[in-house]
This record gives sequence, C-alpha cells and structure tokens, in this order.
Amino acid sequence: MKLKSPYLVKPHAKLKLSRFPTDDTGTYKHEDAAKAVLDRHREDLDSLQEIFYASQQKALLIVLQGMDTAGKDGAIRHIFSGINPQGCDVASFKEPTPIEVRHDFLWRVHAQVPPRGMITIFNRSHYEDILVPHVHNQISRKTLDQHIEDIVEFESMLHDNDTIILKFFLHISPQEQTRRLQSRIDTPDKQWKLSESDFREREFWPEYEDTYNHLLGATSRKNAPWFIIPSDYKWYRNVAISQILVQTMKDLKLKYPEPSLDPSKIKL
Amino acid sequence: MKLKSPYLVKPHAKLKLSRFPTDDTGTYKHEDAAKAVLDRHREDLDSLQEIFYASQQKALLIVLQGMDTAGKDGAIRHIFSGINPQGCDVASFKEPTPIEVRHDFLWRVHAQVPPRGMITIFNRSHYEDILVPHVHNQISRKTLDQHIEDIVEFESMLHDNDTIILKFFLHISPQEQTRRLQSRIDTPDKQWKLSESDFREREFWPEYEDTYNHLLGATSRKNAPWFIIPSDYKWYRNVAISQILVQTMKDLKLKYPEPSLDPSKIKL
Repeated sequence: MKLKSPYLVKPHAKLKLSRFPTDDTGTYKHEDAAKAVLDRHREDLDSLQEIFYASQQKALLIVLQGMDTAGKDGAIRHIFSGINPQGCDVASFKEPTPIEVRHDFLWRVHAQVPPRGMITIFNRSHYEDILVPHVHNQISRKTLDQHIEDIVEFESMLHDNDTIILKFFLHISPQEQTRRLQSRIDTPDKQWKLSESDFREREFWPEYEDTYNHLLGATSRKNAPWFIIPSDYKWYRNVAISQILVQTMKDLKLKYPEPSLDPSKIKL
Repeated sequence: MKLKSPYLVKPHAKLKLSRFPTDDTGTYKHEDAAKAVLDRHREDLDSLQEIFYASQQKALLIVLQGMDTAGKDGAIRHIFSGINPQGCDVASFKEPTPIEVRHDFLWRVHAQVPPRGMITIFNRSHYEDILVPHVHNQISRKTLDQHIEDIVEFESMLHDNDTIILKFFLHISPQEQTRRLQSRIDTPDKQWKLSESDFREREFWPEYEDTYNHLLGATSRKNAPWFIIPSDYKWYRNVAISQILVQTMKDLKLKYPEPSLDPSKIKL
C-alpha cells in the first residue's frame, strides 16, 4: 500500500478525533466539481471491478465505521451504485443474534469476507463488536486490547491471503449529527429510520470518541489502514472515499487472465 | 401476479422453444429508444428498491437461466448496475462442490434466497441442477419429474413466505450463440471466458432444448412464472426484463414503514 492520503492513520498513532476536521472539502470548493469527479470515479470503479472480478487475484474488503448518521448507507449508495452487483457484496452487521454471541466475535465476520475476485463492503463490522461493549463498560480495557490484538492478527491473515483491506471512519461533528437527526424527524419518508437507540447512544458521544481514539491508531496498519474521512459534507465524503478506492485498484495493475484455450485453434 | 406479458409461460403449458422468437424487439424499432427506456427503468428500480428495502414486507427472487452466452451476466450488469448494492445480492451457482453434492439439490439454493427487503438474483439456479444431469442421461425422466415437483413445492413455500419469484429464460438462437462465441474468440479481453465446456455443451443443444421445453411449462406457476425473453438483441433483452421488474415492484404499492417513535415528541 503506497497510497498517500492526508486522512491515513499511521500505525500505532496516538490520535484525537477532535483534532481531525469533519468539514474539510479538500481541493473542492463546490459540490458540483466534486460530483463530476465522483461520476468519473464510478465509471473507473466499474471497469476496474470488471478486471478485478475476471482476474481473481485479489479480494477487496472495505470497512465502514462511524457514529450514527455518519453516512455509511449513503456512501454505499452513492459510491457503489453503478458497479456490477455480481462483483460486489454488502454485509451489514447489526446487533449479534443469540447464536452469534455464542461464538467468538470474529466468527460471523469471517463468514462474510470476500473471496478473490470480489469486493465486500462491511457496513459496520467487527469493530462495532468491541466498540459498543467498551463504551458501555461491558468489557474492560484489558479485554478491549486483547480483542484489538485478535483483530490485527485476523486482518493480517486476510492480507497474507490476498485480501486488500481499506477501513474508513466517517467523521462527523456532533452538530452535524443533530442536523441529520432533525432532518429525519422533519422528513416523512425518513421517519421510519428513527430509533430509540440513536438518541440513547448519542448521549455517549464522548465515550465513543475516546474508544475510537484508541481503536483507530491501535488497528491501523500498512496493510489494513484506517482513513479518517471528513464527512460533514456528504459530497466530499463520497469523493474522498472513491478517490482512495480508484487509486488502490489502479495500483494493482491487474490484467484479464490468459485464455485457458488457444483461441486460434477453435473452429466453430 | 396480475402481470400481462407476451413472454409469460402458462402453467403446465406444453411448449416448444423453437416456436418462440429469439429476435423479437417488441415495440422498439431501434436500440436507442430501448436504451432510453432502460435508463428510466433503472431509475425506477433504484427508487422502488429503496422502499422495498425499507418496508421489509416482501423478498424478490429473480432466476436467470439460458444457454451458454445467452446473456445472464450481461443482463445483471446492465439492468442492476445503478441499484443500491446494499439491497441486492447475486448468487451464482456453478458446478456443485463435493459438500454440495452430498446434500439434496435445493440445499445450497435455499441458503441463498433473499430475506424480506432484499432482491436476490440467481445467475443459474436449482434448474441447472436437474437440467444438466437430464441432458447427459444421469437422471431418468422419472427422477426429473420428481425434482420438478420438489421445485414447484419449494417455490410455492417461498411464495407463501412473502417471496416474489420471477424466472427469466434468456432465449437465443444457435446462430446467435455461434456469433457470440466467435466474438469471444476474436476479442482479447474476452478470451479468458472461453472454456472447453462451452464448446462441449453446445453439441447438446437439441437435448437442452427438449429438457427446457418440458421444464419451463412444468414449473411455471401463477406465483413463480417463467418468461421466455427474446435475447438475440441484448438491448431488447434488457428492457424486456426491466419492464417486468418495474411493473411487478410498482404493483406491490409498498410504503415506507410507520415511524416507531412519534416524531413530534422528539426534542434534540
């Protein structure tokens, strides 16, 4: 991973999310310019995915995390609509089921990792399974660190088995979260998304932030990096992520596989 | 299912595929007109899928079958790129694995059916698992008919559990298959798709056609209909399928769910 990005988290970084911008728009002054670039990226992703799928050399795992309303669903919708659904899966991790909690926390996650040739997007992930319990004091800092080690080793194993891992933390300000929840309250077609838990978990913003401060640095690795994406502006969030995806996939320089038959010898 | 379509197979129909057109283009004289309508259908599907996902009332299972090169992959790519990948899965059924053949033939298929709120596309399906063995005389007509009964009952059970089933047979002529294979031979970026089996199975065209003649009528039901889609023209195939999808989803008249909280009582 030679990728340069201002949003890349260095391995073992001691970071404070509060020092990272939520409203940066990079080199874009206007939404229109960013949207035009996003459109180009979507076209690029579509053709890069075709070769990615055909070559079956690498798997791509994209992890999306962020506070409630940070825009995980929106990012999936806007960046990945346009890609061939045959080559792209989305795995959404909700509260674990009774059978899932009886397994180790990586069990349900491992079942969903992409095979070579596929892109899988984790909408929430194994990170949620240590984040939430830690915020609510259900696991100690020691257990948290044990699980962090488990994750680092798990992701390293995936990398050793041809999986490219990109992890995006969608970073919004608490004020932006308030605006987005207010918009759900005010928009009839969005009201069904309202849930008690959004309002309850919101009270724990500082604890979530603290846990993320620790998590992001502790689990960012050269081969499984975190990016802290300024996400107050949805249009910038989309193009900042798509930029990293396109660059990563281009850098692979994949090719269509060699034919298994000699085309010159086939007579129909 | 009140849908009217000239391509609908009536339950228990005795049919001959050779009497169904492969090169019909319906009311479209030109590719451009069809493509403009397909674009509109894709936009419709995108918004219909959003409500479908939110409402979690129904599941949608789309089955694609056809001779090799009939365009199953292309149909997925052209009709469903544009849909939110979070609400749409593709399950491709290849030759069964050793563990799969040790199970009943519906086992691997059942594992992949859509939950309520989701669309799943079967790229090949349980039909392949009775079709191919019958063509190669590995199962008797009696076993075929037993499996047909199993399928009809399985699909009926899915329907009773809120699954809408639409099955499309992509119908091409043998001449069109020859052209498409020739194009794979001649196009470097497509040569990797060439496989011995395409050329081998092609010799069995009449046996495939016979088995399909029997299968399609025997398994088309009001609640799990087959459509025989003229597919020599890819652009017509796409719009003929998308037309049926849009109509089916519109007819559901789904709505966003009621909010679980009273929005007027929330104070941020």
